[in-house]
Amino acid sequence: MNYKAAITVTLRPSVLDPAGTAVCEALAQMDYTATSVRIGKYIELELAASCDTEAKECVTQMCDRLLANPVIETYRFDVTPLP
Amino acid sequence: MNYKAAITVTLRPSVLDPAGTAVCEALAQMDYTATSVRIGKYIELELAASCDTEAKECVTQMCDRLLANPVIETYRFDVTPLP
Repeated sequence: MNYKAAITVTLRPSVLDPAGTAVCEALAQMDYTATSVRIGKYIELELAASCDTEAKECVTQMCDRLLANPVIETYRFDVTPLP
Repeated sequence: MNYKAAITVTLRPSVLDPAGTAVCEALAQMDYTATSVRIGKYIELELAASCDTEAKECVTQMCDRLLANPVIETYRFDVTPLP
């Protein structure tokens, strides 16, 4: 069965985010009032697995081994079956 | 009132995603069966607005003017009031 995974990888709160700070300053120059901008990654992929549990386990391994850096990032994901 | 916006910016389906392809090939080398990997951005920010509608309008403008490139990207967002 095929599944679609939507993964969000974000920096841990204690890690500085210079890109987010730059965006925050750019928004301020455009007269918007945004504060504490943080920029992360959003990854969508499709995978084959025999059941929901296997799909989630597989995505967890992908995140731990490649998609996220566990030292500075955290991740969360949703796995949904494809028709 | 303060609001938190969670914005997801993704490439339009017709736009090539070389980074996604690279990740897909790396996952294949690690014996995972992922297909069609697409990589986008996830942006979290806080903003002040008088009501939900104003907050959503403000985030839409930020996305259109700075956070997303409407030629090659689409975006979606959730706005939630902060306590």
